[in-house]
Amino acid sequence: MPTKLASIEEYRKLVDSYDTFLFDCDGVIWLGSELIPGVKEVISFLKSSNKNLLYVTNNSTVSRKDYVKKFEKLGLTVTENEIYGSAYATAIYLQKIVKFKAEKEVFIVGGAGIKKELELVGIKVSDKVIPPMSGTEDIKKILPDSKIGAIVCGLDLNMSYGKMAFAHINLMTNEDCLFIATNDDSSFPVENQIFPGAGSILSVLVTSTKKKPAVIGKPYQTMFDSICASHEIDLRRTLMVGDRLDTDIDFGIAAGIDTLVVYTGVTTEEEACNPKNSQATFSMGSFGELSALID
Amino acid sequence: MPTKLASIEEYRKLVDSYDTFLFDCDGVIWLGSELIPGVKEVISFLKSSNKNLLYVTNNSTVSRKDYVKKFEKLGLTVTENEIYGSAYATAIYLQKIVKFKAEKEVFIVGGAGIKKELELVGIKVSDKVIPPMSGTEDIKKILPDSKIGAIVCGLDLNMSYGKMAFAHINLMTNEDCLFIATNDDSSFPVENQIFPGAGSILSVLVTSTKKKPAVIGKPYQTMFDSICASHEIDLRRTLMVGDRLDTDIDFGIAAGIDTLVVYTGVTTEEEACNPKNSQATFSMGSFGELSALID
Repeated sequence: MPTKLASIEEYRKLVDSYDTFLFDCDGVIWLGSELIPGVKEVISFLKSSNKNLLYVTNNSTVSRKDYVKKFEKLGLTVTENEIYGSAYATAIYLQKIVKFKAEKEVFIVGGAGIKKELELVGIKVSDKVIPPMSGTEDIKKILPDSKIGAIVCGLDLNMSYGKMAFAHINLMTNEDCLFIATNDDSSFPVENQIFPGAGSILSVLVTSTKKKPAVIGKPYQTMFDSICASHEIDLRRTLMVGDRLDTDIDFGIAAGIDTLVVYTGVTTEEEACNPKNSQATFSMGSFGELSALID
Repeated sequence: MPTKLASIEEYRKLVDSYDTFLFDCDGVIWLGSELIPGVKEVISFLKSSNKNLLYVTNNSTVSRKDYVKKFEKLGLTVTENEIYGSAYATAIYLQKIVKFKAEKEVFIVGGAGIKKELELVGIKVSDKVIPPMSGTEDIKKILPDSKIGAIVCGLDLNMSYGKMAFAHINLMTNEDCLFIATNDDSSFPVENQIFPGAGSILSVLVTSTKKKPAVIGKPYQTMFDSICASHEIDLRRTLMVGDRLDTDIDFGIAAGIDTLVVYTGVTTEEEACNPKNSQATFSMGSFGELSALID
């Protein structure tokens, strides 16, 4: 069961114990389009205490630049360096971890955020456009392209059969073609509703190719490896803060760092205390409660 | 191991033993766009011997009317009644088996063949059109519709995130909304290549909703129940002829009828004789070999 933090002494000890705080955003910092009370003040306080703050999100539809705007809209000041989206983590993975060949191109089944982040680190993105299919005859025109060195799949609001078929045929034809997913969240929350997420889109290719992708985003270790490839991280003094056990808390556990679950998002206290579920190190009603530390 | 038929006596006994022949088409009757040698003559011979012939296909992209044209193009004469596609079987399932309510509508993630077949048996098809998504803001506009009584998913060459999201939200919001798949073949063969099939498209909704659809097509019993709902079938005198163990032969086995595997499609003799795989009753190099029976 996570140790429940509720007194000012416990809050102070938590802040003193860590230099780096990794945050999930939705359900911790904001909920939908509303800031969670007190969190803005706590973030200012942690920054003025020289803490390193990193926002770790599986959302690959937007780039870090777009994410900075989202923070600004809510009245929070962050820099691009503090944001770690799965699109950027995928770029870092390709650049620093697998050392993607300069002469190869990536074909993306996903949003504009992925293209932006890949191009920013100098990775070539295929400009292949597959026209809409008018019948099965059109499928024959979809041929593999030896330039394609990786398929990157994320949440794609413009998914199409043609894109899927082109990704599929490259994965099946070219044994060296990498298969990468920004994340595999089956759902994508929008306001109070749940819609199909990147993991649901991805399942088309997993089913058709019978191949398993390298998944970058939380809860996978790859996201953390990617963070460590571009930031100095002391594992013992790093805390992961999140609202979901199966992504955020599992991510911290896989990385070997302490975790804090908050109840301002999807997980209830009952679920967090259920021994069958992943166990966070600490729990707290809301991260905003730390505002009690501010004079 | 299937009993291998190779002599004229064995061929004659096979023909005499059955009144109804159920055929898979691709890999049995034709391969891609080429007729398999001898098959045309054998079909004429069986018809002149007063046998009932039914062509059972999982392809839902075309209607029976379109299928008749395909047969004609290859020089084969068939009637619509002899063709049993998964789109038509889905229509029969909705009409005769689940008795779909007249005031409800079906939302289709699939090809024009499904719409045609459903409307021909008097089932209302939703004309809902979801405009292309320009960003996550557009997802909010996707709302459930209480008129939708079933989601039917097949191979959809015009699949889109909007369609998937609309199907998803209806399945999640309305507990009575039926979830039906024309078939769950993960692959769709086009000429010599394999592309994502209906089962791969379907996996988006299976992953996002965590619900299991009623699958109509081979190898599922539903297709056979649907055939029996519109044809007189004597199980003991019915033979399923196919080239695939995991769809055609399993379909015959599930239905409790005898099966014949032919080696003009995807299955090799080695695979058919492997005791780990589904076991057909009989095997034959090609269905065209029966032409030896013709004077």
